Amino acid sequence: MDTVGIGLLGYGTVGSGVGSLLVEQADEIRLATGKDVELRRVLERAPERAKLVPEGVRVTADFAEIIGDPQIDIVVELIGGLEPARSFQLEALAAGKSVVTANKQLLSQHGAELLRAAEDAGLFLRFEASSVGAVPVIKVLRESLAAAEVTGVIGIVNGTTNYILSAMADTGAEYGPTLTKAQELGFAEADPTEDVTGKDAAAKMAILSSIAFHSRVRLGDVEHEGIEGLTDADVAHGKALGLVPKLLGVAKLIDERVNVRVYPCFIPAEHPLAGVSGAYNAVFLESDSFDKIMLFGPGAGGTPTASAVIGDIISIVNTAPGGYVRNCVCYKDLAFFPNDEVVSRFYVRLHVSDQPGVLAQLARLFADQGVSVQSMQQTGEGETAQLVLVLHPVREASFFTALEQIKALSVVRGTPSVVRVEGDYAG
Amino acid sequence: MDTVGIGLLGYGTVGSGVGSLLVEQADEIRLATGKDVELRRVLERAPERAKLVPEGVRVTADFAEIIGDPQIDIVVELIGGLEPARSFQLEALAAGKSVVTANKQLLSQHGAELLRAAEDAGLFLRFEASSVGAVPVIKVLRESLAAAEVTGVIGIVNGTTNYILSAMADTGAEYGPTLTKAQELGFAEADPTEDVTGKDAAAKMAILSSIAFHSRVRLGDVEHEGIEGLTDADVAHGKALGLVPKLLGVAKLIDERVNVRVYPCFIPAEHPLAGVSGAYNAVFLESDSFDKIMLFGPGAGGTPTASAVIGDIISIVNTAPGGYVRNCVCYKDLAFFPNDEVVSRFYVRLHVSDQPGVLAQLARLFADQGVSVQSMQQTGEGETAQLVLVLHPVREASFFTALEQIKALSVVRGTPSVVRVEGDYAG
Repeated sequence: MDTVGIGLLGYGTVGSGVGSLLVEQADEIRLATGKDVELRRVLERAPERAKLVPEGVRVTADFAEIIGDPQIDIVVELIGGLEPARSFQLEALAAGKSVVTANKQLLSQHGAELLRAAEDAGLFLRFEASSVGAVPVIKVLRESLAAAEVTGVIGIVNGTTNYILSAMADTGAEYGPTLTKAQELGFAEADPTEDVTGKDAAAKMAILSSIAFHSRVRLGDVEHEGIEGLTDADVAHGKALGLVPKLLGVAKLIDERVNVRVYPCFIPAEHPLAGVSGAYNAVFLESDSFDKIMLFGPGAGGTPTASAVIGDIISIVNTAPGGYVRNCVCYKDLAFFPNDEVVSRFYVRLHVSDQPGVLAQLARLFADQGVSVQSMQQTGEGETAQLVLVLHPVREASFFTALEQIKALSVVRGTPSVVRVEGDYAG
Repeated sequence: MDTVGIGLLGYGTVGSGVGSLLVEQADEIRLATGKDVELRRVLERAPERAKLVPEGVRVTADFAEIIGDPQIDIVVELIGGLEPARSFQLEALAAGKSVVTANKQLLSQHGAELLRAAEDAGLFLRFEASSVGAVPVIKVLRESLAAAEVTGVIGIVNGTTNYILSAMADTGAEYGPTLTKAQELGFAEADPTEDVTGKDAAAKMAILSSIAFHSRVRLGDVEHEGIEGLTDADVAHGKALGLVPKLLGVAKLIDERVNVRVYPCFIPAEHPLAGVSGAYNAVFLESDSFDKIMLFGPGAGGTPTASAVIGDIISIVNTAPGGYVRNCVCYKDLAFFPNDEVVSRFYVRLHVSDQPGVLAQLARLFADQGVSVQSMQQTGEGETAQLVLVLHPVREASFFTALEQIKALSVVRGTPSVVRVEGDYAG
């Protein structure tokens, strides 16, 4: 075949970006693939979107028309959500059409099933745009690093929260007003729940860690904590300690088991991820064989995301059917490593009565659990003193046991702030 | 075929790394490709290296043995230099064997010829390790961004100079002692000429810009300036202005013409490249379609470089012969954009007699050439004053014309320091 036909599901921001790039970059695509890649049909029910579809391309409200067109080789699914997206992808594969998608919800919950269906059909399922927009992390993990044992994936994979935390660190403002400002500027949705709770990041980390560790991590396997609880006071204290606040997805391979979580944390200002500010995303990969690699770029946006979809289309066109590019890269079935056993470093800030012996009490409770203090700052505030501690890395279960005992002390006022510290922190 | 045979030329640091990874990662490679990838023969004349080759693998001093082995499918050339590496690669392709190499000298001077030979033979030439070690910049440019119009490639592509400049910025030390220390610590060669003059970076930028712009850029096309002239005083003044010194390779697509150079320059501390410290490398890509993407990682080192070679081997094994993965990605023949016409921002530091009217004289000469001053700091030093200027972006020819006139003024003492400023500098 000299022409590759595309059927596009959904003509919203990303879909119309794909439509435009297929026209604008037609020459480049021909030079890169040796074929004409042609948009043949678009599934779009909303009239205001449908009218954006270029002339000569058929718009339909009926998916059967896409499936029934023998000249469509690749279906690009950009409608999002679980259903009917899942059924559409499975039907496309059953009809002999490869699939490109940006659907992180679907991939993070039904990825294994869809990859298996593609593999069984001898077709391709590509989903670069589902995790970090234009940044080709999945391609790098699947292909360049296919044989390297990746031991860690640390990602800033949500632009909204990164924008908010960057702004809080820059201005010293509180979370609430910063979120409002981000909403005004279009960096946060009217309902920001998916972003600020870490759920969006958890879905992306499920996808990335599945590929990185060749195992299966579903959205439900990724515990996530949001940024709503991070105070301006903690951001300021972190800054004084040389630490930058980030919402990180942290996936680790420990003793051939997998631990994937999303939480707000501090990283040293010298860490490559610390410089990733505003709405940008980045993924930091660790391995014994390649040391560390970071990929940085826009995590969202119509044109960058559309650009990733085009990259996936080219990848499919350039891979001959006989080529052995595994769809099913998740061929291991690794167990999960319990959170309690993970070794982490913690920042703790708490208020105590300013009386002799308090520090000794705290230190004893920490020491009893094997928790040692890396640095401590104490400042008097009338009848109370504020303590800011950074602890040496410790089993999380030991830390939380000590923390519960400390919270129960009569000299401790209010609830301590607790933030994890990732990266090598020299103090 | 269920087994892919490898012939390896050169068993030095990278070669022995490849040999080890082929054994250690054999299972992962099989899962990623569906084939056994087997090291069959090694060309190595030095006995102390030859004895490191694993048992069961034939070591030879005769290239004809490699060529003559019908079970060798891929030749990995790691001997470096122009000849016999070039002849070996051409002979391997003529004998029906694809080639993987880390040879930046050869690729930056004879890349077009070799890519053409591979294309004509229907075989593959892969060279990820020739530019930024373990960081898969070439794969991302060739495949993920194949259709995106890349308009800028800015690279920190030499670890030695990045180590030296990072150390100068951190410690305030001069260039000479910092180089000596880098040599003691193994971050600089005994003869550091290739690195500190920017020639090594120029070769890598020739390769990267050829791929990014789909054109032909040879080493000889890349003007390069080294870091030897950068003083501790300028590094300190840059720091005070929020600027970080870096040796950058800067490749730009301007009006469908190409400009590629290597020079020491300042970048704003907030720029993602500013955080790339020590011996690490990074490449920053710009485009209208994907905005900006940065890839970061180790630019050298036996195991990371070997890891990139393994990635290339897997890429070849996974690409069926019918797959249209262009070797010859340099299908355009773009003209070069003259340096004089490039618009750049400059930092200038100079000493002048501390007398009235001097600043007016300088400002007039700049203004006559259309050069406007963005910021100026003046400090008295007895009978002379020191001026530190950052200029607004301007045609380089205009700047240098004004500079020559300023140098000729009787009130100007010594030679002004001139450093380009890349990135958005708000002052």
